[in-house]
Amino acid sequence: MTKRYAIILAAGQGTRMKSKLYKVLHPVLGRPMVQHVMGHIQSIHVDEIVTIVGHGSDKVMEHIGNDSQYVMQEEQLGTGHAVMQAEKLLGNKEGTTIVVCGDTPLIRKETFQNLLDYHEKEGAKATILTSRAPDPTGYGRVIRNDANEVERIVEHKDATEQELQVDEINTGTYCFDNKSLFDALEHISNDNAQGEYYLPDVIEILKKDAGKISAYMTPDFDETLGINNRVALAQAEKILKERINHTHMLNGVTIIDPENTYIQPDVQIEQDVVIHPGSIIKGASIIKSNAEIGPHSEITDCTVGEHTVITQSVAKNSIIGEHVQIGPFAHIRPEASIDDEVKIGNFVEVKKTQIGKNSKVSHLSYIGDANIGKHVNIGCGTITVNYDGQNKYQTTIEDGAFVGCNSNLVAPVIIGENSFVAAGSTITDDIPKDALSIARARQTNKSDYVKKIKTRKKD
Amino acid sequence: MTKRYAIILAAGQGTRMKSKLYKVLHPVLGRPMVQHVMGHIQSIHVDEIVTIVGHGSDKVMEHIGNDSQYVMQEEQLGTGHAVMQAEKLLGNKEGTTIVVCGDTPLIRKETFQNLLDYHEKEGAKATILTSRAPDPTGYGRVIRNDANEVERIVEHKDATEQELQVDEINTGTYCFDNKSLFDALEHISNDNAQGEYYLPDVIEILKKDAGKISAYMTPDFDETLGINNRVALAQAEKILKERINHTHMLNGVTIIDPENTYIQPDVQIEQDVVIHPGSIIKGASIIKSNAEIGPHSEITDCTVGEHTVITQSVAKNSIIGEHVQIGPFAHIRPEASIDDEVKIGNFVEVKKTQIGKNSKVSHLSYIGDANIGKHVNIGCGTITVNYDGQNKYQTTIEDGAFVGCNSNLVAPVIIGENSFVAAGSTITDDIPKDALSIARARQTNKSDYVKKIKTRKKD
Amino acid sequence: MTKRYAIILAAGQGTRMKSKLYKVLHPVLGRPMVQHVMGHIQSIHVDEIVTIVGHGSDKVMEHIGNDSQYVMQEEQLGTGHAVMQAEKLLGNKEGTTIVVCGDTPLIRKETFQNLLDYHEKEGAKATILTSRAPDPTGYGRVIRNDANEVERIVEHKDATEQELQVDEINTGTYCFDNKSLFDALEHISNDNAQGEYYLPDVIEILKKDAGKISAYMTPDFDETLGINNRVALAQAEKILKERINHTHMLNGVTIIDPENTYIQPDVQIEQDVVIHPGSIIKGASIIKSNAEIGPHSEITDCTVGEHTVITQSVAKNSIIGEHVQIGPFAHIRPEASIDDEVKIGNFVEVKKTQIGKNSKVSHLSYIGDANIGKHVNIGCGTITVNYDGQNKYQTTIEDGAFVGCNSNLVAPVIIGENSFVAAGSTITDDIPKDALSIARARQTNKSDYVKKIKTRKKD
Repeated sequence: MTKRYAIILAAGQGTRMKSKLYKVLHPVLGRPMVQHVMGHIQSIHVDEIVTIVGHGSDKVMEHIGNDSQYVMQEEQLGTGHAVMQAEKLLGNKEGTTIVVCGDTPLIRKETFQNLLDYHEKEGAKATILTSRAPDPTGYGRVIRNDANEVERIVEHKDATEQELQVDEINTGTYCFDNKSLFDALEHISNDNAQGEYYLPDVIEILKKDAGKISAYMTPDFDETLGINNRVALAQAEKILKERINHTHMLNGVTIIDPENTYIQPDVQIEQDVVIHPGSIIKGASIIKSNAEIGPHSEITDCTVGEHTVITQSVAKNSIIGEHVQIGPFAHIRPEASIDDEVKIGNFVEVKKTQIGKNSKVSHLSYIGDANIGKHVNIGCGTITVNYDGQNKYQTTIEDGAFVGCNSNLVAPVIIGENSFVAAGSTITDDIPKDALSIARARQTNKSDYVKKIKTRKKD
Repeated sequence: MTKRYAIILAAGQGTRMKSKLYKVLHPVLGRPMVQHVMGHIQSIHVDEIVTIVGHGSDKVMEHIGNDSQYVMQEEQLGTGHAVMQAEKLLGNKEGTTIVVCGDTPLIRKETFQNLLDYHEKEGAKATILTSRAPDPTGYGRVIRNDANEVERIVEHKDATEQELQVDEINTGTYCFDNKSLFDALEHISNDNAQGEYYLPDVIEILKKDAGKISAYMTPDFDETLGINNRVALAQAEKILKERINHTHMLNGVTIIDPENTYIQPDVQIEQDVVIHPGSIIKGASIIKSNAEIGPHSEITDCTVGEHTVITQSVAKNSIIGEHVQIGPFAHIRPEASIDDEVKIGNFVEVKKTQIGKNSKVSHLSYIGDANIGKHVNIGCGTITVNYDGQNKYQTTIEDGAFVGCNSNLVAPVIIGENSFVAAGSTITDDIPKDALSIARARQTNKSDYVKKIKTRKKD
Repeated sequence: MTKRYAIILAAGQGTRMKSKLYKVLHPVLGRPMVQHVMGHIQSIHVDEIVTIVGHGSDKVMEHIGNDSQYVMQEEQLGTGHAVMQAEKLLGNKEGTTIVVCGDTPLIRKETFQNLLDYHEKEGAKATILTSRAPDPTGYGRVIRNDANEVERIVEHKDATEQELQVDEINTGTYCFDNKSLFDALEHISNDNAQGEYYLPDVIEILKKDAGKISAYMTPDFDETLGINNRVALAQAEKILKERINHTHMLNGVTIIDPENTYIQPDVQIEQDVVIHPGSIIKGASIIKSNAEIGPHSEITDCTVGEHTVITQSVAKNSIIGEHVQIGPFAHIRPEASIDDEVKIGNFVEVKKTQIGKNSKVSHLSYIGDANIGKHVNIGCGTITVNYDGQNKYQTTIEDGAFVGCNSNLVAPVIIGENSFVAAGSTITDDIPKDALSIARARQTNKSDYVKKIKTRKKD
């Protein structure tokens, strides 16, 4: 079987991004654009990947990782020059090479696969990935001959009137016979206005050599968007968002407003989940069937159980059971583990805490570094005092306990099974099973006090 | 006057919805799609409604209610077969029958009305509801003859080149002379690839019988959307949302971003209301003039008075007066009744509570099962302790009372008129009028304690 | 140099707005539409501005201010009649007059400038601002002659078949030779169906006088939108929003979803800021580089420092330093001044307070009228008791203090440097430096109390 190689062009600064962040590291749906490209290339199993790095090479390599070899392009002298840098690693090898730009995160892995397969089936020296542009102004046009092979690529400014009518455009992604590529690269020149070496010039050289040049056209023009500024970045975000949401909807997820719902690529969502507007689901979240997310909820790296409802809330890196109600205005911080049928109500923060089945934290509470049993009722305004300014301590609340409102549980402390904490108590010592604990002052009513004060003030 | 009947097709499973919920029960703007259809049919006053049910018939009948008769279609053998099921109820009656699909919630009642009126005026045997499709690919085309009557319906795959140019498409909604319909149904066959009985075949049979077939074209193609998967469901949601928002805007409501504002069909909104982005208004809510809703507020079944402002908040099933300020981040739960000029501030939850004119609950409080008078000031962090683990109790706070911060009001309890609760008090007994009530420990300062601890730790 | 004058037409009621607010005062991106127009006219430096007011003249003048002269149009008898009102102020002056409608807030200042320059360069008696309409139905068409000058304006209803093909339309904005304008106005009549004096009739009169009429075409049809109802108002909001967001993106700001991001015109945003969906940035806010805003945050008149993150929060009229974390669900009210590296966590309200570097208010607190030092830790549930029902008082918390959870700090009070407040304390007296302060009751555990109660209840 033919060996396959990939060259990823990721050396550019991306001046028009106006950013200190290198172009290919700008995220689309939370993931640097070059990672989208790399992920697709990895999924189609090529034998070697070479990434051409330049600006911000350290950071770029850090994000791409070890599945690629790297070559440094010290000066950015054009796309042809960039590919030349791979010669020492790939120059003398037999096989097919796909050259892709690190700033085209929307090209699907199927498109890369199809391009490679088509190229090899055609036995071409080079194959251009093309598409039909609704408005081809400014793009290089791909001119085919009677045999439907590529005759040449012509830049917009050099095109004849007739060529300007062509709407098949060069996307900047190519397959090459690897040896022919590097042979041809030796003959391209920088004798042009910008003084750069252009990769498309290779096509002309291969053609002169009587090589067959073919073109594979992807039907989805959106795929070919190259990101050169933040307007294009927002477009890419929108297109990828729509693509992901579309897939979830076809799989049986109700998304009330797919234009106002932001789901990252790795999120899994089961059938009959309903997602309300303004929701953001990120990372490796898993949303199980019949759960309801939103409106205006942000879920990151959480597992959300069946029939659980999370409204107007934020949850991160936690495991949430079935038939749980969260929100509105709750905040589940990392390492919470919330069992089935729990209720987390408004203005409640939960952090690094287990909450057992059927327990309730309904209002205005902070529960951190705690272990809460089943059927526990945490009254409104309860605070686990987990920090003394130097260390964090654990609070344990056993099954069936009832914690009265506005209590402080000064950790480390154990609230025993079925015990009862009176409202307004600051608990510093453990409470035994079944005990009532109270820590508050007696009430005194001073008659007519208010009236007297007001009278005095008038004096 | 001619009798009128309606047959609603609501038997399908909707496989492509990929759902445990039966297709016609999937909601659009909060209401099952078949209820939209049923509501429109009811509003145009037909003499009998027959709904054909099959998958999930119990649930479907439950949602549609008693205004329809029902016929069970045990096996789903096509639209023609579905209509046949109505024969025992309607077969021998004189009159006009409109046949509509339960999955087309966007057809307006005016369109149904116009279709019926046109059909009867034309004296046709059948009248097809048609529309012009921007892209008719895949649709059945309606071919008219020189008399502008319908010659035939031709499926996309059977159409000639010339017929493919026709952009008038069959929407799947029809009027029939009732007796002719059931006569014709006896002659349709299932001799086709799917082995199904198709309703459009009736048209051909009626035509052969020299019956006049007319077509009524609705100018709004969006109306005709049939919902077969969740992508179409989201489209329907969007179209209906835009239609509702457009109407409100023409009536004098400012909607800052109608694409990001979600108003259910029964909501009433008066002139000069302003709705900010991300707002959701549901159920039977009434928003009175000059109120301001949002951003990011969700209002369900509430009456909101004039000049009231609700920002970043959630309110449900409550009555809210004039010149009230709510939010940001407030939660008004069911059965709250909030009088004029009240302020409900951030991180405040109100439930089943009356709040009198000019009172304030400005921050971080939970007020449940309470009755609050006028000119009351509820300090920050106040909690009505309404639950002892077994029962709920009432808190009464009389006019002019001042409840200090972080107080617990342990219900049942009465805070008397013009009384004053000291900050940090847990109040368990009633407070008389004009009294000061205090329930807290004295402060002790231990000098240099912190320094000593730190020194000791360093040792 | 030629003198330049501007006449702004702002007298209409705007019946189709269905509003008690006068048409030109309806805001677009938070600013009355006439202020957009006025701002642009001011920025191109004309010698005199005359605004024609009528309905709601007091309010209109209040919003426009002193840079304009005003003339009252008592009765609204058409656009020609409106301009006539300016005669007493401008009638006898040499120069160029631009006439603009107060309900066209989308016309750019550059377009006004170009229109004036073109008019004077052409030496025309009148110049019409035109544009190409995608669908010109209903618009007045601008008919040019062979010299490319304007031959006439023809209303849609009066146009010939050939004229209806013209898509260059009259936007209703004009430049005139000032004296010619007022001369011509004397000859227009109200002999038409509405009985009104129409400004476009001036064109015909000037033309008859052998005056040259030119047309300046703006390429952006969106600019010419006149706002007559709330649907158009929402369109204007959307177009202006997109224009502003586009500019920020080209300047190096990442806007994840520009369709769901609302930035008012005066906001300044630096490079590499990231704005998440559902965010609203208003007033004179300044967002410094690498800050991150949203999702769902509303920022009004704030300065936000570099690398500061504000999620799901509301902030108003405050100064926020660098590397500050705010949210989710925080509320920064006016006159807060928050130093670098501060953390304001969930369900925290800050008002009229200074917070020193590196201090934390992490949860469920209200901090109002306070002065907080550096490295202070404010425990969860802390409340500054700043109001006694009559006055507001100051709380001072000095550097390094640690305030335990659920504390009440009853102002006026000073919490000394490095002091420690025990959880659950109500602090009424000053705490010296390094002291521990405690104000709470001792805990009592009553054994088996809960069990006994339950047993008793069963009896």
